[in-house]
Amino acid sequence: MPSVRKLATMLGISVFTVATSYERLTSRGIVVSRPGAGYYVARPVQPQPREDALPTPRTLPNNAVSFVRSVVDPSSHAIAPGSGFFPRNWMKDALPAPVVGRLLRGEGSFVSPAPAQGSLEFRRQLSIKLSSLDINAPPSQIISTFGATHAVHLICRQMLKPGDSVLIEDPSYMVQQAQVLAVGASLLPVPRLHDGPDLDVLEKLAKKHRPRLFFTQTVLHNPTGGTTSPATSFRLLSLAEKYDFFIVEDDVYGDLVGTSSIRLAALDNFRRVFYVSSFTKLLSPALRVGYVVSPAEHVDVLVERKILDVLSGSALQESLVTNVLKMGGYRGHLDGLRRRLQKVRPDALAALIDVGIEFSAPSMDGLFLWGAVPPHVVVDQLLADMFAQGILLTKGPMFSPTGGFSRHFRFNVAFCLDPKFLKLLRVACLGRGVHLHR
Amino acid sequence: MPSVRKLATMLGISVFTVATSYERLTSRGIVVSRPGAGYYVARPVQPQPREDALPTPRTLPNNAVSFVRSVVDPSSHAIAPGSGFFPRNWMKDALPAPVVGRLLRGEGSFVSPAPAQGSLEFRRQLSIKLSSLDINAPPSQIISTFGATHAVHLICRQMLKPGDSVLIEDPSYMVQQAQVLAVGASLLPVPRLHDGPDLDVLEKLAKKHRPRLFFTQTVLHNPTGGTTSPATSFRLLSLAEKYDFFIVEDDVYGDLVGTSSIRLAALDNFRRVFYVSSFTKLLSPALRVGYVVSPAEHVDVLVERKILDVLSGSALQESLVTNVLKMGGYRGHLDGLRRRLQKVRPDALAALIDVGIEFSAPSMDGLFLWGAVPPHVVVDQLLADMFAQGILLTKGPMFSPTGGFSRHFRFNVAFCLDPKFLKLLRVACLGRGVHLHR
Repeated sequence: MPSVRKLATMLGISVFTVATSYERLTSRGIVVSRPGAGYYVARPVQPQPREDALPTPRTLPNNAVSFVRSVVDPSSHAIAPGSGFFPRNWMKDALPAPVVGRLLRGEGSFVSPAPAQGSLEFRRQLSIKLSSLDINAPPSQIISTFGATHAVHLICRQMLKPGDSVLIEDPSYMVQQAQVLAVGASLLPVPRLHDGPDLDVLEKLAKKHRPRLFFTQTVLHNPTGGTTSPATSFRLLSLAEKYDFFIVEDDVYGDLVGTSSIRLAALDNFRRVFYVSSFTKLLSPALRVGYVVSPAEHVDVLVERKILDVLSGSALQESLVTNVLKMGGYRGHLDGLRRRLQKVRPDALAALIDVGIEFSAPSMDGLFLWGAVPPHVVVDQLLADMFAQGILLTKGPMFSPTGGFSRHFRFNVAFCLDPKFLKLLRVACLGRGVHLHR
Repeated sequence: MPSVRKLATMLGISVFTVATSYERLTSRGIVVSRPGAGYYVARPVQPQPREDALPTPRTLPNNAVSFVRSVVDPSSHAIAPGSGFFPRNWMKDALPAPVVGRLLRGEGSFVSPAPAQGSLEFRRQLSIKLSSLDINAPPSQIISTFGATHAVHLICRQMLKPGDSVLIEDPSYMVQQAQVLAVGASLLPVPRLHDGPDLDVLEKLAKKHRPRLFFTQTVLHNPTGGTTSPATSFRLLSLAEKYDFFIVEDDVYGDLVGTSSIRLAALDNFRRVFYVSSFTKLLSPALRVGYVVSPAEHVDVLVERKILDVLSGSALQESLVTNVLKMGGYRGHLDGLRRRLQKVRPDALAALIDVGIEFSAPSMDGLFLWGAVPPHVVVDQLLADMFAQGILLTKGPMFSPTGGFSRHFRFNVAFCLDPKFLKLLRVACLGRGVHLHR
């Protein structure tokens, strides 16, 4: 290519314009810069065995990993009643690019890493936020993570060794089940009842197997949507004391509850509870910012694990969330999400009942409805039909360590009013005839 | 508190102003909002066992983890000749907040997660970037990570099991040594010579122990600053083939080299090489964005590990780096870093020699100088004196799996012209008398 200066003279334009254009051609791989020698037209790229990215497998997700791959790949589905994320148009006011720019402006330049435990200002804001839930979380016991999954990963690797056993709710979030299995520990399923885990079963299992951990969601349980009663919470903590296990309380959806519900962490004060949450689900799916509040004696070792896994957190992400919390925008965004949920939830429940889904004591809050198709429905056929139409649905056994709940689905209410989705459900549950008569 | 409406009327100001003020008081924990019931003055926070965050331990770092804690905590030191990061004022033009805002503007809102393997556009940009190093990396074989440490963590957990052995350079980056040990594998130290690893030693070890992996830095080796010669690279790949081990090529500092040096990945075409790099060191320490290019058969399992560790990457971080690469700003920033290094490096070398540091064949490029104090110096006393003055220095044995290099230090040239630092070194190396005479 002509030199920058030469081309600028030839065309009568500024050197800056030419230099910028060459840089852009370079970044697109069309031109190559040889330092000290100038710019050259790039050789054609060598033939590549696989030109493009591995697509998300175009098969039905049948385990936790393939489920996550589908859920986080926007190209894999058009409608996602099986997802745990909010629809994109519900989230678009939370973090538009200009807001990100404004929130970060006060930070100046991004020239420093985040401390290994997480930025102090971020942990202070979390401490204030948690105090409104009556959770007394000193910044010294908070560790920032790349989302709740990362927090659970650190806890599993710290607290478990192969052969250990872990109490887990049935049904519960499949990724946590897979994380426990990945460290070589085994699962002890505890039925999830309407008001929390079945503590009679839990006690028998605890007595017999002496588990190390119990995973639970106190508020807006995933997938059932239920909330643990204060009495069950109190007895659960007594059992943890009696049988010497720790509890991982996952609260990623908790901020969706308008009224205050008591968390285990508020009762326990971090003697036996690890409290885990994140901003991915409710603030922005494009962020991976979560945290764990840990019993004091485990803080240092969790930070050490974090260092050996990822070195440290992203100061940019932590600044951004800190400023969202400081400016008060998070609460306003949550209010908006709650209002939309309150509006859509009764309609979604009615529509699902109308097309033949069966509910027993559906929860009144949050993102999920946990319902069942009638016994005659061939669930895998329904899933395949949905998948073929670009609709991601998640069946009950994916949430069950016992492979149970074969007729159940977790419905994300924000996607449930889609006519194509309802039509397919209606045909499956009530038959084509019924559909045609309406 | 008075209701929002009431206070607005009382004071004759807008409802919006009062609501915003209440939100800010709430986010600071001074006021508590009870949904449906109004705003209340917060109860005093319960006394907390430890009010503030755990400070970074105020002791000399003596292992990889405590070293990292010190390096990434800006409050732990004022001057960091022992750090692997650039000084803050060298980086401040790379990602100022307005640039972040501008780069993200095109992205609209942050409403979608990143695909588990990493955003496709990000992987395409990386593929183009790597083609300028003659590395043929199809997007399908690239996996985004939260930095290079995260990439190495995924590889270690995928490729190693307890009892496996791993070839590692002596000296080399201490965090990778700790990561290998953390999965229960053992280290086989291979001396690092001026033109690369000592392949005679490596072959003997490979023959005897049948290692699974070899960790190396081809270009700007950390800590020695050396670069592996093409002949050594070629023979190394032949040995990997002969003794059936994989190579992890860490290239986090490689972009600092102006002239093109051949990478193992360019020769091998991802049959036996995992290529790891990141944008944390050279673009912004506030970002945790790295990647691994993997042999095709290991891509899917690495993505699965990533899902169970962290679910997925940060779409916001990946968009930001994608746009930096697309707009060509990264190359300009690198040119600036290189120019500053070329300017400061000879002066730093001269100053260190002047105060008594000994060098054998110092490298001519990059951020580091690897030199030794004279035999009479009590290294731990020097480190403690430096530490007391807020100067972070890193001694040779921290980089050595054999605990060797007891007189060596890795000097970050960008910090080496600091007068207080040079004075302390001079006193230690040449004695107080020499200093006073000058």
